[in-house]
Amino acid sequence: MSLKDILRRVRNGELSVEDAEAEICGFEDLGFSKVDYAREARTGYPEVIFGMGKTAEQVQLIFSRLYAKHGKSMVTRANEEMYELVRQIAPDAVYDPISRMLTVGGGEQRFPGTVAVLSAGTADLPVAEEAAKTAEWMGNVVDRIYDVGVAGIDRLLAQRERIRKASVVIVVAGMEGALASVVGGLVRRPVIAVPTSVGYGAHFSGLTPLLSMLTSCASGVMVVNIDNGFGAGVSASIIQQAILEGGK
Amino acid sequence: MSLKDILRRVRNGELSVEDAEAEICGFEDLGFSKVDYAREARTGYPEVIFGMGKTAEQVQLIFSRLYAKHGKSMVTRANEEMYELVRQIAPDAVYDPISRMLTVGGGEQRFPGTVAVLSAGTADLPVAEEAAKTAEWMGNVVDRIYDVGVAGIDRLLAQRERIRKASVVIVVAGMEGALASVVGGLVRRPVIAVPTSVGYGAHFSGLTPLLSMLTSCASGVMVVNIDNGFGAGVSASIIQQAILEGGK
Amino acid sequence: MSLKDILRRVRNGELSVEDAEAEICGFEDLGFSKVDYAREARTGYPEVIFGMGKTAEQVQLIFSRLYAKHGKSMVTRANEEMYELVRQIAPDAVYDPISRMLTVGGGEQRFPGTVAVLSAGTADLPVAEEAAKTAEWMGNVVDRIYDVGVAGIDRLLAQRERIRKASVVIVVAGMEGALASVVGGLVRRPVIAVPTSVGYGAHFSGLTPLLSMLTSCASGVMVVNIDNGFGAGVSASIIQQAILEGGK
Amino acid sequence: MSLKDILRRVRNGELSVEDAEAEICGFEDLGFSKVDYAREARTGYPEVIFGMGKTAEQVQLIFSRLYAKHGKSMVTRANEEMYELVRQIAPDAVYDPISRMLTVGGGEQRFPGTVAVLSAGTADLPVAEEAAKTAEWMGNVVDRIYDVGVAGIDRLLAQRERIRKASVVIVVAGMEGALASVVGGLVRRPVIAVPTSVGYGAHFSGLTPLLSMLTSCASGVMVVNIDNGFGAGVSASIIQQAILEGGK
Amino acid sequence: MSLKDILRRVRNGELSVEDAEAEICGFEDLGFSKVDYAREARTGYPEVIFGMGKTAEQVQLIFSRLYAKHGKSMVTRANEEMYELVRQIAPDAVYDPISRMLTVGGGEQRFPGTVAVLSAGTADLPVAEEAAKTAEWMGNVVDRIYDVGVAGIDRLLAQRERIRKASVVIVVAGMEGALASVVGGLVRRPVIAVPTSVGYGAHFSGLTPLLSMLTSCASGVMVVNIDNGFGAGVSASIIQQAILEGGK
Amino acid sequence: MSLKDILRRVRNGELSVEDAEAEICGFEDLGFSKVDYAREARTGYPEVIFGMGKTAEQVQLIFSRLYAKHGKSMVTRANEEMYELVRQIAPDAVYDPISRMLTVGGGEQRFPGTVAVLSAGTADLPVAEEAAKTAEWMGNVVDRIYDVGVAGIDRLLAQRERIRKASVVIVVAGMEGALASVVGGLVRRPVIAVPTSVGYGAHFSGLTPLLSMLTSCASGVMVVNIDNGFGAGVSASIIQQAILEGGK
Amino acid sequence: MSLKDILRRVRNGELSVEDAEAEICGFEDLGFSKVDYAREARTGYPEVIFGMGKTAEQVQLIFSRLYAKHGKSMVTRANEEMYELVRQIAPDAVYDPISRMLTVGGGEQRFPGTVAVLSAGTADLPVAEEAAKTAEWMGNVVDRIYDVGVAGIDRLLAQRERIRKASVVIVVAGMEGALASVVGGLVRRPVIAVPTSVGYGAHFSGLTPLLSMLTSCASGVMVVNIDNGFGAGVSASIIQQAILEGGK
Amino acid sequence: MSLKDILRRVRNGELSVEDAEAEICGFEDLGFSKVDYAREARTGYPEVIFGMGKTAEQVQLIFSRLYAKHGKSMVTRANEEMYELVRQIAPDAVYDPISRMLTVGGGEQRFPGTVAVLSAGTADLPVAEEAAKTAEWMGNVVDRIYDVGVAGIDRLLAQRERIRKASVVIVVAGMEGALASVVGGLVRRPVIAVPTSVGYGAHFSGLTPLLSMLTSCASGVMVVNIDNGFGAGVSASIIQQAILEGGK
Repeated sequence: MSLKDILRRVRNGELSVEDAEAEICGFEDLGFSKVDYAREARTGYPEVIFGMGKTAEQVQLIFSRLYAKHGKSMVTRANEEMYELVRQIAPDAVYDPISRMLTVGGGEQRFPGTVAVLSAGTADLPVAEEAAKTAEWMGNVVDRIYDVGVAGIDRLLAQRERIRKASVVIVVAGMEGALASVVGGLVRRPVIAVPTSVGYGAHFSGLTPLLSMLTSCASGVMVVNIDNGFGAGVSASIIQQAILEGGK
Repeated sequence: MSLKDILRRVRNGELSVEDAEAEICGFEDLGFSKVDYAREARTGYPEVIFGMGKTAEQVQLIFSRLYAKHGKSMVTRANEEMYELVRQIAPDAVYDPISRMLTVGGGEQRFPGTVAVLSAGTADLPVAEEAAKTAEWMGNVVDRIYDVGVAGIDRLLAQRERIRKASVVIVVAGMEGALASVVGGLVRRPVIAVPTSVGYGAHFSGLTPLLSMLTSCASGVMVVNIDNGFGAGVSASIIQQAILEGGK
Repeated sequence: MSLKDILRRVRNGELSVEDAEAEICGFEDLGFSKVDYAREARTGYPEVIFGMGKTAEQVQLIFSRLYAKHGKSMVTRANEEMYELVRQIAPDAVYDPISRMLTVGGGEQRFPGTVAVLSAGTADLPVAEEAAKTAEWMGNVVDRIYDVGVAGIDRLLAQRERIRKASVVIVVAGMEGALASVVGGLVRRPVIAVPTSVGYGAHFSGLTPLLSMLTSCASGVMVVNIDNGFGAGVSASIIQQAILEGGK
Repeated sequence: MSLKDILRRVRNGELSVEDAEAEICGFEDLGFSKVDYAREARTGYPEVIFGMGKTAEQVQLIFSRLYAKHGKSMVTRANEEMYELVRQIAPDAVYDPISRMLTVGGGEQRFPGTVAVLSAGTADLPVAEEAAKTAEWMGNVVDRIYDVGVAGIDRLLAQRERIRKASVVIVVAGMEGALASVVGGLVRRPVIAVPTSVGYGAHFSGLTPLLSMLTSCASGVMVVNIDNGFGAGVSASIIQQAILEGGK
Repeated sequence: MSLKDILRRVRNGELSVEDAEAEICGFEDLGFSKVDYAREARTGYPEVIFGMGKTAEQVQLIFSRLYAKHGKSMVTRANEEMYELVRQIAPDAVYDPISRMLTVGGGEQRFPGTVAVLSAGTADLPVAEEAAKTAEWMGNVVDRIYDVGVAGIDRLLAQRERIRKASVVIVVAGMEGALASVVGGLVRRPVIAVPTSVGYGAHFSGLTPLLSMLTSCASGVMVVNIDNGFGAGVSASIIQQAILEGGK
Repeated sequence: MSLKDILRRVRNGELSVEDAEAEICGFEDLGFSKVDYAREARTGYPEVIFGMGKTAEQVQLIFSRLYAKHGKSMVTRANEEMYELVRQIAPDAVYDPISRMLTVGGGEQRFPGTVAVLSAGTADLPVAEEAAKTAEWMGNVVDRIYDVGVAGIDRLLAQRERIRKASVVIVVAGMEGALASVVGGLVRRPVIAVPTSVGYGAHFSGLTPLLSMLTSCASGVMVVNIDNGFGAGVSASIIQQAILEGGK
Repeated sequence: MSLKDILRRVRNGELSVEDAEAEICGFEDLGFSKVDYAREARTGYPEVIFGMGKTAEQVQLIFSRLYAKHGKSMVTRANEEMYELVRQIAPDAVYDPISRMLTVGGGEQRFPGTVAVLSAGTADLPVAEEAAKTAEWMGNVVDRIYDVGVAGIDRLLAQRERIRKASVVIVVAGMEGALASVVGGLVRRPVIAVPTSVGYGAHFSGLTPLLSMLTSCASGVMVVNIDNGFGAGVSASIIQQAILEGGK
Repeated sequence: MSLKDILRRVRNGELSVEDAEAEICGFEDLGFSKVDYAREARTGYPEVIFGMGKTAEQVQLIFSRLYAKHGKSMVTRANEEMYELVRQIAPDAVYDPISRMLTVGGGEQRFPGTVAVLSAGTADLPVAEEAAKTAEWMGNVVDRIYDVGVAGIDRLLAQRERIRKASVVIVVAGMEGALASVVGGLVRRPVIAVPTSVGYGAHFSGLTPLLSMLTSCASGVMVVNIDNGFGAGVSASIIQQAILEGGK
């Protein structure tokens, strides 16, 4: 919409003053929150709601605005209460208690290649699923390759060709996080490593795999925050977008 | 070379037994080091020599083998002594004392897009140059945008369009590393953040920007180790390669 | 009251022995606590009750003494139980469960300029509100500017002039805390940064924004403890007091 | 200078193209550095050069530009080599090897009140002097009160009235940093605490007084980075500026 | 009892075989625990039961053995459940839910001087009481001086003479722990500092006052573990014992 | 089973397709988990289920597969819910709530020597029992020597000969973990040290005994993760296996 | 000297104005330092000079004042240069390069009992000697018992009676610091533990023995800073003083 | 030698009083050091000299005593100066500047199996050689398998059978230390992991591989201190001894 169009629609009563303001500014001010409508234009994907630390009512309100704007939305680190409130607005909302993701819409395949999501162990699943579901919501086909930790290296090597077929590889691992290094040495595509808080003792809630992945002897490994499956999914999608557009 | 070709050339004396073994195994065993010839096939780029902790003699020997094999080579964290020894083998070797990189060959442009390398301050230059020179050696055109730290946000915003033109963006920052977050919110291409050890006190030799970049409020930021300009350059090149090949 | 006045009122039975002792010593000894009546004279503001680690009964007793003395009082990190007990003494006590502040009285505007309280995200609200309410209770007009984190830098820049109008700026941010650096470079007034425990993983309950703010590339940033909205509100008020009195 | 003036002077040859560009943009691009001329307008004080991690040549070049623009300049964490090069441009440059500050110009008294700089011990002098000299360069009268650590509390209390007279108080302390808490409870003016790296063992190069000052039981204490005397001096001056201008 | 006496009583059926074994070995083996009867002879005070991590049944059993042997006993970090079980054996057991101490017997005054127990704030009471009650149980007269934190230094100085009268001084403080340094500089008797977990944010559950006390600028300060009121009480008693016996 | 045998049994319907696949690959893919049947051949002992972070249903399913394959199985860090589900498959499953171990089968003595398991205190029992039960399940005779911490060194020295008789010694200790050093200097057999999370304050949930054991002045001490009784039991069994087979 | 005496001597020219001021105030102001003459009256021992971070000239000047006042003085963490300058004032000054202590006078035996100084290893000698020499300078007879680390427990137990004879026991240990716990369980006198920076890797420059000593399973152990032999010597002397004076 | 023999030889002048005392006590007291002759009997191997923190003269004296007693000796973390002094006593002493080991005698093969020493990279050689040379000196045949880091997993897998042949496997790795996990999953013999200080940034001088190895997903991995090749060599030898003696 051009500025002229916006103003014309306001005059005609087709657009509220608030919506017109949001359209012009790029964001809408809810007082406790400024909803960022311009993010899609700026970064290529719409704002996503990070549920942690927000009340269910705040999530509902932000969701309602983003959903109205984009026709789809996603809440990460959501809970049942948020799901109940969001469902009142978008009855087809889906909530996955494992990955704690609440999604509406999204998911149409947009990229030619696939994103492989590997997990080292079964307990890493919530984070792996957050990565996988984020990537899917943003338009990727995801290939899940779970429980391929390096203590049984043959389980991993048996998947070697499958992994090498992906456009982007996400490696999710707790414990010592060694999987990232081994995979980093096996593939010729970008590797995004996600340390998880799965472990105990000297694991320090994910600090150990985080440090381990950052100091990996494989040189092409990039790292995101502990348990940040969402960030890995977004980064993978951004890389896919760059591939799709030929980097231009 | 097929196995048959290798063996035929051994019989004809065209290939030494050691070289034939290396060709078949994918690596050559120097005792203290196993030179990895197969890395290029596996990961898309040849093995690079990490100079730190190696003697100049060890570097020279490994260099001589990689150079013979690939016709180009690179040593990171090199020093003058390594340069002197490497120069005996490759007289056109170039050594940059700022980034401590020692390179021979490489540099032919291979990718359509560019890699932008941003630095927050002047003192971050050694790391920024390690990233830039690595990317150039691997075939990228690099756009250097230095000293655009967020304390003077207008200096950064003045470069907004230039940054947005890059295929991949590398952000190098010491101090609190805030540049990565601001850039991460401005572009729609992959952002690789490199914390540096530039700072003092509560900076803890780079720990602070490292943690800061990992917990960035911008969701599409990927992080490599403190001062790891090389890793950022490699990762950017891998992404460029994926773009070039359409992710397949 | 002069010493002579105090003694005369004791003789006349107008003042109890305990109250007279407190008046003379500057503090009253409750055994488990020594209530500091002289703090206002010494530091410019009366003692405030830090609720954490105290029982509701202890809070009630200390409150009753301070309230009797000053006609107003404030409890930080309060809870519902404390509210119930305090309300028995001061029926007009107000409790805000978000910021966990329990206040009676205060709030009359004393300073010409305003205190701007910025928050990076919605989840930082409890701390931002602790800062804002403390500043208000101590006599400031507060301008709340919430959810202006740097991932959408335009949301912040749109508030540029509004922020620059404040006499003192409080920046409340979790995640990587980059907002403090950007704001520090935009304004010519004191900036007090408050890191929050909002984040996860490598955020280490606020350690990351704390370190980030301490190592900020903007040189005029001062920092208080993680989640210490109260301290920021007090410091802002002390600066306002210095302004009001011309620093003398 | 208005834009029209600038352009007119360019046409008349009174202003070079580079200088005109810098005047319009607010910064000048030296390639490795972007000199920030607009900082004074934005934050109230001109850009200062942080010497650490820069070569003497880089410092000299940036200095020459800032000095030409503002007629005064300052380098922190300078060394003898930088001094030699700067002196070639500004023969009246002064270098203090204790505080490692290199200054030219500045120092004219601008504010009515004083800044008190307290140090806990003799070994804290380099940092205390960095704070004091910064404050002086920016126009403050400084009252130095050194070696008043709390192990001999009477030495401190003997200075009580003198400290209370200051408009802003800077407390510089290594070891456990307890001085900040005691002073914070004695005065009614802003207290800026600077932890120093003076200590050993469990002191962890300043981490202990840093944490100690951040968790001070005195509520009006604001903290800057370890050994950051410069930052304390700047913050004190900003507060003084706010006082001078009545916070408006 | 001499060995001969023990054996004679066994023969006469006056002593069970288990008790005789314990008497001879110096400890009794309960399988999961070896009760140390010889500790009193070796270190001057009987074994005390550390309740944390033990089941109430284990505590009851160990208690029953120590109580039978010494006629008095003490459990630290106890809970209500332990109290119930211990009360079945020793009906006069006393449980204090604040300090979580469970004591039977003890308390007869043995030493001429007193032990002063200072606390910085009201929230430090549980630890201060653990120290005070331990010292009392071991025979000390305790002088409690609570809520004398350094933010109101006059409250502390008003107690100066009272503190100086003690034979041993225990300082209990959370937050930044500065009280230990100030007291350490005021007295000529041993000072035992106990950091507490009272605080938040950069306090790191007591790490900050621990480090602060260890790096105190007052040279005669000795430190025990965070929240270890018990250890401070024991150490004070050992010093008192040395005084009583003239160090011989 | 040879490959021929497997295929023959498939043809005869004696073996399902899934089981045959698992037999050939060495692992079976359950989607969320890849059960590692080949581990026994590779490392000498079958895969064990780590219960933490898995749902009871996941544990039940993996258990059912391993149990079917090996006729015995073990779950560490189990809970009551897992026990209920596993019991449906293996009615003779045994669950120990102290060590949280769930075992079926195993326990037949295979090695001539014994494994001594020492604990420093009563609260270390859960970890000591995890080590002991693991060792027993893998075929060892275990000699439990509990509560022999160094504060009463005679209790330990009284067991000197008994400890020296073991083939392998496991030392389980919380607090400062000093027991490992003393035992390491007393025996001529491998010592495996297990730090526990028993302690408080500066103990940092086991970090202190972990670091202490790693820096032990006794040179033959090997360390496993905090609370990792299982790992110690496995390592002891591997050493026993090496002894049994003469290291070949 | 009474105030009247001081003034009379000033009038008679027997006392300079500066000295009279110092006598009355309790300290003398040297600008960079305030020499604390009243410390002896306050804490029982004169101020001692901590050499680290001071210039040799500063040390010389402070020394000259303290020496003039007390007829004896001590510099810790001294160096050769300080020795040279101090010797110009006090030719009988003694410098020990191992412990880096520079002493003049002191050493007359004042206490009946002895202070035992134990060291775990030979490399702990510098710290052990700092403790021993401090104690001797303050009037103690010291019994040195070196190289009795717990890896050879019999070496320690052979000294059992000798250790038990001391009035106060100082335990100096690097590595894991286990010696403090074993000794703490053997004696009935105060134990002061000094961790040292002797070690490597997970020893973290003394952090490990520091934490280990703080979490010791022996309850009567008090701890001072890493490498703080001086503090241990002072604390031991204070305890001895309390013993000498019967705690009064 | 029986006690009777010792005494008889003293009487006959065949044995000095000092040597006799050492023979009876099990150690000899050199004042600064107590040489532990009984260690061999107690732990199976003679005392070894840890050179770090000792003067060359101290090393020479301890060496002379151990060498006289055992006819062989070893100094770890030695330097050239120690070598010169030791050579005066034992002209056939050998010094290796890479591993900094100084050895005399030892090396006779005592065990049937071999110890495999793996290193991840070339820079890990000093530590790997310390482990290898220690093991050789104590009687092992060592199989060195260097530069088999997991970034090129095929280099490691090519050595699979060779590694599996060893009786004990030592894995030396810096960077992220992932090699330990992969090897731990490949072999059925004890694996001793040695983290090294080879790395930078988030590697924190070896902390990262240390934590990584401790939290390894392979359950039979035991860990020693950072850079502690010596400890790994000793532990391997103790396991070999247990194998040789059948664990009895």
